[in-house]
Amino acid sequence: MPLTDNPKTVGVIGGGQLCRMMAESASPLGVEIVFLDPAPNAPARPVSRDQIVAEFDDPSGLRELIDRTDCITYDIELADPEMISSIDPNVPVHPAPETLHMIEDKRRQKNRLQKHDIPVPRFRSVDSVADVQSAGEEFGYPLMLKSRTGGYDGRGNLRVDSETGIENALDELEGSLMAEEFISYDRELSVIGAKNSTETTVYPVTETVHEEQILRHSVTPARTTDEIKQQARSVAKSVLAVMDGHGVYGIELFEREGDILVNEIAPRPHNSGHWTIEGATTSQFEQHIRAVLDLPLGSTNLEHTSVTVNILGEKGERPVRLEGVGPLLEEDGVHLHWYGKDTEWALRKLGHYTVTGTDPDQVEERALNFSNFLRFQP
Amino acid sequence: MPLTDNPKTVGVIGGGQLCRMMAESASPLGVEIVFLDPAPNAPARPVSRDQIVAEFDDPSGLRELIDRTDCITYDIELADPEMISSIDPNVPVHPAPETLHMIEDKRRQKNRLQKHDIPVPRFRSVDSVADVQSAGEEFGYPLMLKSRTGGYDGRGNLRVDSETGIENALDELEGSLMAEEFISYDRELSVIGAKNSTETTVYPVTETVHEEQILRHSVTPARTTDEIKQQARSVAKSVLAVMDGHGVYGIELFEREGDILVNEIAPRPHNSGHWTIEGATTSQFEQHIRAVLDLPLGSTNLEHTSVTVNILGEKGERPVRLEGVGPLLEEDGVHLHWYGKDTEWALRKLGHYTVTGTDPDQVEERALNFSNFLRFQP
Repeated sequence: MPLTDNPKTVGVIGGGQLCRMMAESASPLGVEIVFLDPAPNAPARPVSRDQIVAEFDDPSGLRELIDRTDCITYDIELADPEMISSIDPNVPVHPAPETLHMIEDKRRQKNRLQKHDIPVPRFRSVDSVADVQSAGEEFGYPLMLKSRTGGYDGRGNLRVDSETGIENALDELEGSLMAEEFISYDRELSVIGAKNSTETTVYPVTETVHEEQILRHSVTPARTTDEIKQQARSVAKSVLAVMDGHGVYGIELFEREGDILVNEIAPRPHNSGHWTIEGATTSQFEQHIRAVLDLPLGSTNLEHTSVTVNILGEKGERPVRLEGVGPLLEEDGVHLHWYGKDTEWALRKLGHYTVTGTDPDQVEERALNFSNFLRFQP
Repeated sequence: MPLTDNPKTVGVIGGGQLCRMMAESASPLGVEIVFLDPAPNAPARPVSRDQIVAEFDDPSGLRELIDRTDCITYDIELADPEMISSIDPNVPVHPAPETLHMIEDKRRQKNRLQKHDIPVPRFRSVDSVADVQSAGEEFGYPLMLKSRTGGYDGRGNLRVDSETGIENALDELEGSLMAEEFISYDRELSVIGAKNSTETTVYPVTETVHEEQILRHSVTPARTTDEIKQQARSVAKSVLAVMDGHGVYGIELFEREGDILVNEIAPRPHNSGHWTIEGATTSQFEQHIRAVLDLPLGSTNLEHTSVTVNILGEKGERPVRLEGVGPLLEEDGVHLHWYGKDTEWALRKLGHYTVTGTDPDQVEERALNFSNFLRFQP
């Protein structure tokens, strides 16, 4: 299999931090990145061959991306998955447009999983107050009300605590909706998986901690029982079997009373897998590049207990300048990743750092403590 | 210390594989690379913010590089170290022009080391057959005849086996010459070191294997006694103390009968330090970026026993296409680095791979075996 066919170029739709980290890990393989993003000077720009500045659904921009690359993949799910195939039915697109189409609609996603006997929270479509009331009778309260499409980092999800909250929730959410059983989980977990044309592989199980529905930090390996970890990896493998198209998938899970339920799937490298850069033999980003080019997948072995902490914006739109990284860089086994964004807003993902070590509790305590070093100074 | 001052940019003179790997490791720190190289589409191009296409001594190209970057460093020693200071005496240049000037002349380099009681092979300047004969009487035969400047990968070095070979050797070598005692070493070793304004650090000792004066593979940690390793690191620290300017230095050593002698110094990340990407906590490339920006230096701890094998060109100038990487990528703990060069020539450095493991002999055997997988197909 020729790797360096002068050389291979992967086209990425979206040039955010995921594309940036794909580019960092593509280079050692001799693989180049060209990406399309409407924002000039997107985070991936300084480590990519080129940026095509165009809207995600701009046909001539997509045409140029297709012409300049050997296969197409995604940093963001905002692109219309059908459009690329309509422009060029022969260009390899990973994951497959059908898979993106299925995943982008949460109800369709859950339907598909359920059809394949993959455990998910109970759910149903809702259109009216009466529908939600009836879901409430079936699932009890609280329940989750979700926009079927367009959600991201918890946007489009609302918790409804009782019948009286239904109308407000219906007013706030947009588009077609679904109701979902509220899961009082013991833990949130995540498994990063990957597949190419012949292999499927999963990483060790990660424990994720969210606040305001945004991932704050993750701990790998997850502090749960071996049985749960085995179950989580097995469920993740079943999910991968249902997915059409090569690539990395982030599979978010709930652990509840000894059982695993699938929460959501991301058809791309995932925030909860950033630990793999230092903590696993092959990073999820290198794995994604290998997968979409149908190269052999790399080892997913754990190298270190790893805790990854997101660096999130604090304030409304303002220029960002991170200070206090000196003390961070002095510390042994602390790995900074700054995404090069020049503007901060509240909860915007600006970077992350991963701390490696041995004992999960100790590494977590150490990692969370470092966040006190960092300051944003406009 | 502000890291992301919108953001920091390092200017690199030369855009070869060293610059490429600097760029790969600068990105996670939020640092960008702009480089100057006369060859359009140099290896570092696809992972850098920009390339300035200009000769290494082109004043307007250098002016642009200085204007666009926060500090200047080197991928190659072909640039005139004084020129930058003459264009802008205030721009930080690392290593210091004076250090480059001293290193680029092998005799001046050895003089400096000797002056600081750092052990080096015996040497003297030679100008004529009579001078070399007199060196032969002092050092015995064989002896090494070396061009004082411009040498690279053993070019400019000739072994003279007896008095009768002197004239031919003098004819072949260019510029001012020096004669050096030939060292029948037990082992060739290398230590990668780094310094910023306050810290000096050295990596574990690497064993290097050369053929035709080109590094073929390296083994870390070196298979020698603890005493020798300690001596090698201590000599390396003495060398660093003599060097002016921040950055990574590759320090090539001879081990002979329990003693360490300095062979040569490279004022930049070095081929014998490529193992640090996977084998050490901080790669030599990240370390170089930290050092030139005067950020805290990272840990040099050994993570894995590592064997790095160079992928060298086989034939005269022809387009290059590497095949057989599939089986390589399938193997656990094998990390490919392809430099994206599109033309091959004999002994040109096209890439490398590092194999990690535990037992040095076993990892070495495994690593050397993989080179049979690779084929060049024009």
